[in-house]
Amino acid sequence: MLTELRREACEANRKLPEHGLVHLNFGNASALDRQRGIFAIKPSGVDYKELRPAAMVLVDLEGRVVEGKLRPSSDTPTHLELYRKLKSLGGIVHTHSLYATAFAQAGRPIPALGTTHADFFFGEIPVTRALRKKEIAGSYEIETGRVICERFARLDPAEVPAVLVRYHAPFAWGPTVGKAVENAVAVELCAQLAYFTLQLKSASSAIDQTLHARHFRRKHGPEAYYGQPR
Amino acid sequence: MLTELRREACEANRKLPEHGLVHLNFGNASALDRQRGIFAIKPSGVDYKELRPAAMVLVDLEGRVVEGKLRPSSDTPTHLELYRKLKSLGGIVHTHSLYATAFAQAGRPIPALGTTHADFFFGEIPVTRALRKKEIAGSYEIETGRVICERFARLDPAEVPAVLVRYHAPFAWGPTVGKAVENAVAVELCAQLAYFTLQLKSASSAIDQTLHARHFRRKHGPEAYYGQPR
Amino acid sequence: MLTELRREACEANRKLPEHGLVHLNFGNASALDRQRGIFAIKPSGVDYKELRPAAMVLVDLEGRVVEGKLRPSSDTPTHLELYRKLKSLGGIVHTHSLYATAFAQAGRPIPALGTTHADFFFGEIPVTRALRKKEIAGSYEIETGRVICERFARLDPAEVPAVLVRYHAPFAWGPTVGKAVENAVAVELCAQLAYFTLQLKSASSAIDQTLHARHFRRKHGPEAYYGQPR
Amino acid sequence: MLTELRREACEANRKLPEHGLVHLNFGNASALDRQRGIFAIKPSGVDYKELRPAAMVLVDLEGRVVEGKLRPSSDTPTHLELYRKLKSLGGIVHTHSLYATAFAQAGRPIPALGTTHADFFFGEIPVTRALRKKEIAGSYEIETGRVICERFARLDPAEVPAVLVRYHAPFAWGPTVGKAVENAVAVELCAQLAYFTLQLKSASSAIDQTLHARHFRRKHGPEAYYGQPR
Repeated sequence: MLTELRREACEANRKLPEHGLVHLNFGNASALDRQRGIFAIKPSGVDYKELRPAAMVLVDLEGRVVEGKLRPSSDTPTHLELYRKLKSLGGIVHTHSLYATAFAQAGRPIPALGTTHADFFFGEIPVTRALRKKEIAGSYEIETGRVICERFARLDPAEVPAVLVRYHAPFAWGPTVGKAVENAVAVELCAQLAYFTLQLKSASSAIDQTLHARHFRRKHGPEAYYGQPR
Repeated sequence: MLTELRREACEANRKLPEHGLVHLNFGNASALDRQRGIFAIKPSGVDYKELRPAAMVLVDLEGRVVEGKLRPSSDTPTHLELYRKLKSLGGIVHTHSLYATAFAQAGRPIPALGTTHADFFFGEIPVTRALRKKEIAGSYEIETGRVICERFARLDPAEVPAVLVRYHAPFAWGPTVGKAVENAVAVELCAQLAYFTLQLKSASSAIDQTLHARHFRRKHGPEAYYGQPR
Repeated sequence: MLTELRREACEANRKLPEHGLVHLNFGNASALDRQRGIFAIKPSGVDYKELRPAAMVLVDLEGRVVEGKLRPSSDTPTHLELYRKLKSLGGIVHTHSLYATAFAQAGRPIPALGTTHADFFFGEIPVTRALRKKEIAGSYEIETGRVICERFARLDPAEVPAVLVRYHAPFAWGPTVGKAVENAVAVELCAQLAYFTLQLKSASSAIDQTLHARHFRRKHGPEAYYGQPR
Repeated sequence: MLTELRREACEANRKLPEHGLVHLNFGNASALDRQRGIFAIKPSGVDYKELRPAAMVLVDLEGRVVEGKLRPSSDTPTHLELYRKLKSLGGIVHTHSLYATAFAQAGRPIPALGTTHADFFFGEIPVTRALRKKEIAGSYEIETGRVICERFARLDPAEVPAVLVRYHAPFAWGPTVGKAVENAVAVELCAQLAYFTLQLKSASSAIDQTLHARHFRRKHGPEAYYGQPR
């Protein structure tokens, strides 16, 4: 069932360590078939190199495992919450990539300081509020999804396809899980650039808004002219 | 004698440079068979790539070499002291990994700033006091073990499976040497995250205690639900 | 047509990720045959590993594609502008290499702090002014070339073979595209050295001018005595 | 002639990029046969991967090329000066390794902040004074050797086997060129550790002198007990 979805999810998970985004077991990716309302996600605690499409766990949008012998990632309720509330998402990637996680730990958004950032994210990469004690003690992973959605109340997740969960780490997404992986790479790249820039110039002013929009529109939306015509 | 113990110790030592934790010859791992009271440790000054199980030196808990033609690691008395005093230890890893060693040199504990840390260590990774001149001039390596144990007088080494020896470098441990290697990787990862976080926010507040406990308990102890059921 | 030019341009593009200079798709190289007035440039949005000489796009100095089925790099107008105005250029490389891009984002030139820098660049690596809103909304990529040329009004591009475009990233060049790649590597190396040096000594004074000149002249111009006689 | 010396010098040069110590062409190693008064050194401007023992240039202690078709490294006069004045040297390595070069550019010695440093260097790794304009305009490379020797007027090069040349980069040495390579690796490692430590604690106090001596003596001199008996 859903052979292609499993394959995509598996490949995305395997790419995370190849891109240097995960250390130890910190990271997982999922791919959604929105029509069927089912997503394929990494099984919990399994090594990336040993992942096979058949090991992916299939979960429906009610949170029920519909196929798979292994337990799904312990972050599954977060993926579920995001897929339910943010309708444009087709793939989600969670990592503890170094510089992005440092911004999350410092409680600072990743500011838009240059065109590299503007090519991927329209505005800063935001950081959620901290979870409250009651939320932590309750359905912690669902609440993690909820603070992300709360943070995106007035943001378009298609224009800002990533977030930092405070004290935790980044989540990135996209219309497909392949695009979500690319955005996760971009989050870490922009975090590195911002970190070095901030060290060089504490009072670094943000990129000019016109330039920001130009770069984002060059690659996204109806006026995009980057890449080959489709 | 103790073929499996030698094999585990050898593999653990060989993994240290693969994980980027050791530079030059700075690092060693040992594995203990507590029932027999014997541990297998790296021979001193031998290249990691040339290590074979047969080259491991077997030492008993009185500090006597019971098998092995080579001299054991010059840090053997530290391992010995830890195995004697901290009864839950089954494996020990010592490295000079870069960021963790920088914290040790700065005399600063690695603060618990996020969930990555909380997944491995319950509280900060502590730093020992400096050795006194008399201790340095005396049985220096035993004294190194002693200041570690002194620092853990009111800490559970199973909940905080690592320490920074002041002006020196980290030691990590676990119920097995394989787990000790994993903890040594986590020490360096948490040190990197803390370093970047502190640069971004000097007054960075520690992770919320409820969140800290939730992450630690998600992976450790009776209520753990991460990974596959055993 | 222009087989050798395509081959050189292709090889230069493929070397960029090998040198760790590009991340994702951020980077492109071109090679000019000034006699024919044609340059070969990377096609837009094509993976570096899949690049073949036949895929290179040939563009003349009026900006017309003279051969090639793919769309050229979206930065082609910048390359064009530089080739038209700076007559000594035979190759151009654009990257978003990490430390150099951080200097660009911070709006700081890369200062000449040591002999490594002096071996490649006679004076600091300058940063352009920010583009004006009208320039960004207009022919953005041509204007990028124009602010570079504006910045070099009183600089010799053969003595300072690189620039930082403010809020964007570095461009490097040379008499050949092979030399341009080498200069792009040097830009990133000097940016790293300057970054670490500035962290160690905020008020770091620039390298002595006599020493600077000596190192540059040891490798460049009529009195060079580095390397083998030609 | 001197087949073994050429082989050692060649191998040492080839190891420099493998250890990540050289970028582009910045680095060279030489090996001295003090009895014959001849050293083998890297030819200038030749790629490390293409180096063969036969390409090494043999130079006597008067600075005359006694064998070799290629021009020797442009830094040859510096090596020559060091071999002539510092009688315990049997091998010299020059690199522009990143963190050590940053300390040189900042004009700061690498302080002894921990036992990793103490295992290799007895005291800080010193930095020379800047060369005077007359020295730069004169026999620049010989003068580079002279300021190093001037800096070691009251230091034992066997106890501090490395130096930073101000605004330039490190030189390391040893009784053999193999040991010189090891010391060059240690210089960069200690520079990295010191850099991170200084960032964590600006007012970082130096390692206790008793501890410093203990670590150095554990590996060097008559009381050493590290490694296997010889």
